[in-house]
Amino acid sequence: MNLADLPTPCLVLDRTILLRNIARMAEAVGRHGVALRPHMKTAKSIDVARLVLQGQPGGITVSTLAEAEYFSAHGIGDVLYAVGITPQKLDHVARLNAAGAHIMVLTDDPETAAVIARHTQPPHTLIEIDTGESRGGVPPDDDALLEIGEILGPRLAGVMTHAGHSYGGRSIAEITRIAEAERGGVVRAAERLRSAGHAAPIVSMGSSPTALHAETLAGVTEVRAGVYMFGDLFQSEIGTHGLDDIAVTVLTSVIGRRPGRILVDAGGLALSKDRSTETAPHDYGFGRVLDLGGHPVREAIVRRAYQEHGVIEMNSQALHVGDKLRIAPNHTCMTAAAHDRYHVVDGGDTVVAVWPRVNGW
Amino acid sequence: MNLADLPTPCLVLDRTILLRNIARMAEAVGRHGVALRPHMKTAKSIDVARLVLQGQPGGITVSTLAEAEYFSAHGIGDVLYAVGITPQKLDHVARLNAAGAHIMVLTDDPETAAVIARHTQPPHTLIEIDTGESRGGVPPDDDALLEIGEILGPRLAGVMTHAGHSYGGRSIAEITRIAEAERGGVVRAAERLRSAGHAAPIVSMGSSPTALHAETLAGVTEVRAGVYMFGDLFQSEIGTHGLDDIAVTVLTSVIGRRPGRILVDAGGLALSKDRSTETAPHDYGFGRVLDLGGHPVREAIVRRAYQEHGVIEMNSQALHVGDKLRIAPNHTCMTAAAHDRYHVVDGGDTVVAVWPRVNGW
Repeated sequence: MNLADLPTPCLVLDRTILLRNIARMAEAVGRHGVALRPHMKTAKSIDVARLVLQGQPGGITVSTLAEAEYFSAHGIGDVLYAVGITPQKLDHVARLNAAGAHIMVLTDDPETAAVIARHTQPPHTLIEIDTGESRGGVPPDDDALLEIGEILGPRLAGVMTHAGHSYGGRSIAEITRIAEAERGGVVRAAERLRSAGHAAPIVSMGSSPTALHAETLAGVTEVRAGVYMFGDLFQSEIGTHGLDDIAVTVLTSVIGRRPGRILVDAGGLALSKDRSTETAPHDYGFGRVLDLGGHPVREAIVRRAYQEHGVIEMNSQALHVGDKLRIAPNHTCMTAAAHDRYHVVDGGDTVVAVWPRVNGW
Repeated sequence: MNLADLPTPCLVLDRTILLRNIARMAEAVGRHGVALRPHMKTAKSIDVARLVLQGQPGGITVSTLAEAEYFSAHGIGDVLYAVGITPQKLDHVARLNAAGAHIMVLTDDPETAAVIARHTQPPHTLIEIDTGESRGGVPPDDDALLEIGEILGPRLAGVMTHAGHSYGGRSIAEITRIAEAERGGVVRAAERLRSAGHAAPIVSMGSSPTALHAETLAGVTEVRAGVYMFGDLFQSEIGTHGLDDIAVTVLTSVIGRRPGRILVDAGGLALSKDRSTETAPHDYGFGRVLDLGGHPVREAIVRRAYQEHGVIEMNSQALHVGDKLRIAPNHTCMTAAAHDRYHVVDGGDTVVAVWPRVNGW
């Protein structure tokens, strides 16, 4: 099967690029002697997880209970559900753990910690630490940290932080500074808990940019990263990826043409409405246009995205309705989520495998 | 089952509001004595289609072949696939039609019309007319119109146009003017084809705004509209819907709280990254916050959306982790597409049914 034969729109995954991205992150984290706990929220695929986990201890991170259930059903036994847990979700976690999974949860809330501690099958729990993103988490020096530790008692497995604001970094130097603040904060939190008598064995930090560019990971036991596997235009704009390192693209067909522009069948649903490159140095609209072999088509971008129509401003003379193009996405997590499977290629345009994804919640 | 018992995030559909929206459009179109061909691209649900089709002849519009297959398998026998067809998709259409469906397709391209005419099972085809949106379609007075009509010959079923630029209208008067240009253009195209000897029985126009606000539909045989069933914040901003007429919301749980803001488990995937109210008179961020009963929570909006986290700036004192809220979306077509089913309520918070959706392609 060739890409040219696939119904469109659909998702293409270039395994050659994926393996290169995996090797690069494994090397970046490996030189610190720290485990990588890959975040599967972008890939949502057991086939990708197996490639990523080669040579790693085997723990992963997920962003939904649907992922937790899917990956543990596929034999991955160590899963961190890295979105603040609610009391109502504990029974689902307990069901999965009773069936053999080992799912850890996350909280920054004393009330929720109390519900966890009272649960008949309480999961191991990490305390979320805010090291500068100001999204979730308690600051490392906040009184609530020790309060939550006390409430969790033997269920406390450690601390975790996510320097999501590293995506706002505009230079490697800035990302390196954010990584050091992330590391320092989460290690400080672990030390405070240990001084209070808790083991807190896990000290988890990460985002793709800080995982790649941290100068030291002293005191950290594991690093989380996810989007690095696929990359995207936004990651390229902040310097953590090359434009040629984007592993996921949307295959699309020309469905109309006018002088100076074409219509394609990849619109807002197939590409997502993510506009994260809007404020980046280079604005790629709704995506960058590549040919069937993955090579860029001059400076062409998807200028507008309706539900099922994309508008590309480009020379349309050599194109015909039905011709196929590929679109590199702004934000691969958002774009991939509209599709239920990957059509895998190895650098060319021959489809060598089809890998399912676990979407939804 | 109560909304409070559902895992989050998930999609809620208020049938009471849906039925009100359906009745309003049926009346608006009915006073012209013209058939409504509802566009199912927003709802993607046979249960919604059955409610919409009550008292209508039965034809629908779809935006994907997945919808065409799903609705024809559920017994809807007259389907317009309203996205420009490609040669490669004709075999799929032919398979469905051979199995008993009656799927019509759309083109504005002479080369594609020639492929249709040569196909062993050519579908009935509408010619797409550009009446001002400048997306797809041939202008009514373009030579290509008669050329395509000649090529299609007996497969020509008529003409269609979509005044999608009506969404850019900022007053009822402006939408009414756009509706009249849409009507005049598509009727002119039909007349030219008829003068050239073609029957062109179908003259199809529509968008939710122009369907609601057209002053006359003389010469038009059917009107298409879809988003009106559910409404959204953007439709409310352009005046085609009230804020209280939004039938679809995302149910979400509080997963964290800080002074002046909360985190919820509806982020960019559950809400979509659509920011269509950004340039509207009122910018609702990533959605408007309602309580479990559907009543607005003061002026609260979702200010930021990460993959699985939404940030709401509001008084967090009375809230606890696990409490539930509902989010009215900017653009319901985009938001609903992330979810595989509706949890149906009748005005309150009791779940009376679960209706599946057909996503993807």
